[in-house]
Amino acid sequence: MTSILQRRQFALVSLFFQLFFIFLFYLFARFDTDAERDLMMNESDGSNGSNVKRVFVNTDFPLFQDIHVMVHVGFGFLMAFLKRYGFSAVSVNLLLTSFVTQYAMLLRGFLTQSFHDSGTFRVSINEMVAADISCVAVLITMGVLLGRLTPVQFLLLAFCETTVSVMVEHVLFNILHVNDGGRSLVMHVFGAYFGLAAAVVGNKRNVMEMDAEGSIYHSDLFSMIGTMFLWIFFPTMNAAIQEPADARHRAIVNTYLAMASCTISTFLISSLTDHLGRFNMIHIQSSTLAGGVAIGSAANAIVYPYHAVVVGMIAGIISVFGHAVLSKRLEKRFNIYDTCGVHNLHGLPGLLSGIISILVALLYAYKDNYEKNGIYHIYPYFAGGELQGDRDAYSQALYQLAGMIVALVAAILGGLLTGLVLRIRLWNQVDDPALSLEPNYYAKQEFSFASKYMETPQENAEMDLMNHRNSRNNFEEIY
Amino acid sequence: MTSILQRRQFALVSLFFQLFFIFLFYLFARFDTDAERDLMMNESDGSNGSNVKRVFVNTDFPLFQDIHVMVHVGFGFLMAFLKRYGFSAVSVNLLLTSFVTQYAMLLRGFLTQSFHDSGTFRVSINEMVAADISCVAVLITMGVLLGRLTPVQFLLLAFCETTVSVMVEHVLFNILHVNDGGRSLVMHVFGAYFGLAAAVVGNKRNVMEMDAEGSIYHSDLFSMIGTMFLWIFFPTMNAAIQEPADARHRAIVNTYLAMASCTISTFLISSLTDHLGRFNMIHIQSSTLAGGVAIGSAANAIVYPYHAVVVGMIAGIISVFGHAVLSKRLEKRFNIYDTCGVHNLHGLPGLLSGIISILVALLYAYKDNYEKNGIYHIYPYFAGGELQGDRDAYSQALYQLAGMIVALVAAILGGLLTGLVLRIRLWNQVDDPALSLEPNYYAKQEFSFASKYMETPQENAEMDLMNHRNSRNNFEEIY
Amino acid sequence: MTSILQRRQFALVSLFFQLFFIFLFYLFARFDTDAERDLMMNESDGSNGSNVKRVFVNTDFPLFQDIHVMVHVGFGFLMAFLKRYGFSAVSVNLLLTSFVTQYAMLLRGFLTQSFHDSGTFRVSINEMVAADISCVAVLITMGVLLGRLTPVQFLLLAFCETTVSVMVEHVLFNILHVNDGGRSLVMHVFGAYFGLAAAVVGNKRNVMEMDAEGSIYHSDLFSMIGTMFLWIFFPTMNAAIQEPADARHRAIVNTYLAMASCTISTFLISSLTDHLGRFNMIHIQSSTLAGGVAIGSAANAIVYPYHAVVVGMIAGIISVFGHAVLSKRLEKRFNIYDTCGVHNLHGLPGLLSGIISILVALLYAYKDNYEKNGIYHIYPYFAGGELQGDRDAYSQALYQLAGMIVALVAAILGGLLTGLVLRIRLWNQVDDPALSLEPNYYAKQEFSFASKYMETPQENAEMDLMNHRNSRNNFEEIY
Repeated sequence: MTSILQRRQFALVSLFFQLFFIFLFYLFARFDTDAERDLMMNESDGSNGSNVKRVFVNTDFPLFQDIHVMVHVGFGFLMAFLKRYGFSAVSVNLLLTSFVTQYAMLLRGFLTQSFHDSGTFRVSINEMVAADISCVAVLITMGVLLGRLTPVQFLLLAFCETTVSVMVEHVLFNILHVNDGGRSLVMHVFGAYFGLAAAVVGNKRNVMEMDAEGSIYHSDLFSMIGTMFLWIFFPTMNAAIQEPADARHRAIVNTYLAMASCTISTFLISSLTDHLGRFNMIHIQSSTLAGGVAIGSAANAIVYPYHAVVVGMIAGIISVFGHAVLSKRLEKRFNIYDTCGVHNLHGLPGLLSGIISILVALLYAYKDNYEKNGIYHIYPYFAGGELQGDRDAYSQALYQLAGMIVALVAAILGGLLTGLVLRIRLWNQVDDPALSLEPNYYAKQEFSFASKYMETPQENAEMDLMNHRNSRNNFEEIY
Repeated sequence: MTSILQRRQFALVSLFFQLFFIFLFYLFARFDTDAERDLMMNESDGSNGSNVKRVFVNTDFPLFQDIHVMVHVGFGFLMAFLKRYGFSAVSVNLLLTSFVTQYAMLLRGFLTQSFHDSGTFRVSINEMVAADISCVAVLITMGVLLGRLTPVQFLLLAFCETTVSVMVEHVLFNILHVNDGGRSLVMHVFGAYFGLAAAVVGNKRNVMEMDAEGSIYHSDLFSMIGTMFLWIFFPTMNAAIQEPADARHRAIVNTYLAMASCTISTFLISSLTDHLGRFNMIHIQSSTLAGGVAIGSAANAIVYPYHAVVVGMIAGIISVFGHAVLSKRLEKRFNIYDTCGVHNLHGLPGLLSGIISILVALLYAYKDNYEKNGIYHIYPYFAGGELQGDRDAYSQALYQLAGMIVALVAAILGGLLTGLVLRIRLWNQVDDPALSLEPNYYAKQEFSFASKYMETPQENAEMDLMNHRNSRNNFEEIY
Repeated sequence: MTSILQRRQFALVSLFFQLFFIFLFYLFARFDTDAERDLMMNESDGSNGSNVKRVFVNTDFPLFQDIHVMVHVGFGFLMAFLKRYGFSAVSVNLLLTSFVTQYAMLLRGFLTQSFHDSGTFRVSINEMVAADISCVAVLITMGVLLGRLTPVQFLLLAFCETTVSVMVEHVLFNILHVNDGGRSLVMHVFGAYFGLAAAVVGNKRNVMEMDAEGSIYHSDLFSMIGTMFLWIFFPTMNAAIQEPADARHRAIVNTYLAMASCTISTFLISSLTDHLGRFNMIHIQSSTLAGGVAIGSAANAIVYPYHAVVVGMIAGIISVFGHAVLSKRLEKRFNIYDTCGVHNLHGLPGLLSGIISILVALLYAYKDNYEKNGIYHIYPYFAGGELQGDRDAYSQALYQLAGMIVALVAAILGGLLTGLVLRIRLWNQVDDPALSLEPNYYAKQEFSFASKYMETPQENAEMDLMNHRNSRNNFEEIY
């Protein structure tokens, strides 16, 4: 009986959630007909001060699609560098994003004014962008734990983490009024430390350890597909949710510059960490992206281009340093095993981003630095704006600090709790002894993926084919 | 002599068609200067009711590019999962799209009012979108027949199929006034059943059968590149040709939701079809896309988000069921061999889409459900619109049914006829005995692709290299 | 001591440049607040005649992102076809683009009116597009020299070439007032002949010669990823910098048609060059793109669609001819080794583009052929425009010829000079005898990339792993 629960657990859990989602969508979700009416009247209204929410179907949608590529191709293939986990990395990525987008859309809906007033909430392209961003936090956490959770555990992780992350976002933006334009705090810092905390209490044994955690030549190239699409579209991610147009424009240009200088400093420091001056593949795949993370929180607020270049350069240095020095120490001292080096790509540069957002608020949070009332789009609670706020540069900087601490503490507590939940032996576990008797299951090969040839293993002809295939795989393992 | 005809047949056929295309473009194709004049005046005109056709260079073009990525990267790499056909799948894909875009643009031009009035037709970005969509039908058919046709046969197939598909489209949209927003009927249903019908009468013997039709690890990852780009841009495909903006907006959000829930149900059912609860790679690669197909016809018309979630869920169930149960029966009983499982991805979910478009018309075709006169953009012949139509919800539903039957019947008849044409021994055939004597040609390796090292095989040095290469390939075949 | 200079040379050179860039950005670069103020007022102003520079954050940005994908994924993976250089091709690509974007942005800034007037220059999305286009010239040159330069040499090459290319661009557009819409002259012709000239004087010995310059099956598929993204987004590249909207529209449609017909003629001629009528992989990977290059210069000016179809067809013929016949002769007679066949993809079709731009000026440079004052956007110095020019069709054609000659001569002289600079023994060289003693360094494996497992080679455990890995690699080399 236990055995059936183990085999059909994924089906049961995913069925429960999906039916639950449908029920909630049925009760509460409506199209944003206000936005649509507005669309019908004039698609290209000015961007200042109208009360009607604008949805640019033709102009916001391409930005959404860039982010959609990052989430699915970027993160999916970035995690495909492990020799035997390429397919499952991309697939589990797709499973989790499909789960999180629905759940995050519902959860955010419940926090809207519209839900409070009318009992239903609205969905539009803006909500799709927000849902995709919720996915990123979960995918970052997945990068820490890759190879150590079963699909059921990943689903539960996504459920727990999204719940906390949407709450944290609500606190930072609607209560603390923090500027976190590119979502470095609520997405990168939160996702990374949530995962690391879950790793502390979670299953230590790593499926991949059996296999020396190897990458091979082609899996590195697949991983590079992920890196490139993340690199290319990072300016979109940091800019897509900015309003008005000048903040969006600054976010784009600042991120573009930070990506470039971060890449140069990544190559620079990487060659210094090797005794022969060579570059290390993992630095190129990961640290070149740190510039986009580090500039995130303040990309909309930085008013001098060279600041972005400097921030990018520092981010590359920190990230390579993390890979070359810190990761091993974390592993040895704290027994935290970080499969994809997430701490060096999202954790440290995310914290840097929080610090920069504090400095930027201290130095530049003055009305004259931004066009018209632009400052109130960046710091909504600044003195003199519509929200009747009373902040100056100094107090805004304190709130930025508070936001960083909230994100960090919530991530660690949430991660620890989630790690404990995932350890409950009720759920499928990677090292389940009942399952490890089954050859090629869970512990070996593509993690819990059947090959195409295993649809009806009772048929002998196909079994032979399988054996043939396995012999090839064994061969590949040896060499 | 026969031999020269066989070797140079492709060159002759493609030369004939290309010169013919140039001649027709010379005689009849002109730039859309009306649209351009309009562009010069005001790029951002409102979307309601102006008589001048609008071409949004800056806003429609990104949507076109999303579809362009789907057609070339999406379909190309999706079909790259076969061990030895990756390169030829991507290449033949490119050949056929280049052929079909030109031909479809001409053919559609001949059906326009402008051609009727002035003897010339106009080309603009809208015509490029339409041409790319014509490619999709052919690429779906190519998926059924992959590995069983020579390049010449594929060109002839593209010619025949595009001729029929443009006619069918004309009948559905301009005569029957059916709503098929995402083109599920004229693209997915048509392409799939056209291919299956051609497979019934076509060459049964499959090049790939010799090789156990195997995929290998990396070819599965390449295939996943195709899956991901199709998955990501499906909302664009279902929305790009929608007018006005609110229909486009609904099409985007509905497709987004259907993709997510379809992915969850694909994983769910896939794990149920395996005795150990694992996921099957081919389901992940293919059935996760069924949600976009199934929502297609009615994505612009569905007014409650949860409908989209339910449709996506059903699509995933049907598609995995097709892969797990139906494909084998089709093969055994009807001797229809469907290389890429097209029936389960495009055929069945396409029929589901037709049924849903009937239900939606029955349930929601009332004026109040859509903003302003939005209903006339979805159902142009509805009572009270500009076209002086007289339909109500019930009669529109009947026309939707008629449209589905027309698409299905035309596909089957067209496919049977085309299959017979392709069997004429005049054309190069895959199992041509005269060719099979040639080692490494046609029947082995990349289908009719020379390797880079075979440019001048008379040179000994290069021949040695080749042998070396072949020995490696043989090695790969054994293991 | 020499040894330390060799090992740390890259770090020193890149540090110097990056600090220098930061210093210049600090002194001179400012955000384009004029554009931003304009944005705040009205994002969707008409496109005719306003003096304020427009920056379409929401509409130009997606076009920029298409080009960004071409530069990083397109060129990066296109060059990944060499068996052991896939990772380094993509990585060095990223290094050079990060370097060139910063440098080109600075250099172009110094040539602006704004810098002349105020001592600072502005950065915006337009400058990002221009910077990305400067990258393309360097990446084309990289394609010629792939495998024969160390990273330090590539950085110096990028520095020299960008300096010359920005100057050439300035001469062609601001002094000669040449129409080179898709930048075929200043990007494709310049990049190709710069590289070929550098190859004449540069290091003849090729790292890859040791290895028979082989590609393998999967590296060909990776390369095809690059081809596809370049193919898909070529219309964007030729159109993104066009003003006003009708010229942009023509550039898009013309390039789309030229890509299609070029692909057909590539397959056609490729099958003729093989004695069995098969297609050659390298033609498919490269020559299918020649249509976009050949139409580039005049894509905005061609007013009949069939012209574009004809130009594409000729481009395919020339490019395949170059691969099949010319490349070998260049190698034998002039000892020019062109790793990626750049001459056939960018050189010859680029020259064809120059010739076509001359013919188009002769035949169509009349005011009536373009809407309103459209002709002055294409040929700014045409008689009757704002610049008080005095040209007619004939004199404009002569200037087009002059522009082509300037680009060609500057490329060859600049390339020769740069080749000599790179030969100075101070810089790391690929065949450095001091380094060749080091196993797996420079001359073998991924060019100057350490594997992930080599971070601390002093540790024995990891060394064992390495040896294990090497043994696998050796194995792969044998078979």
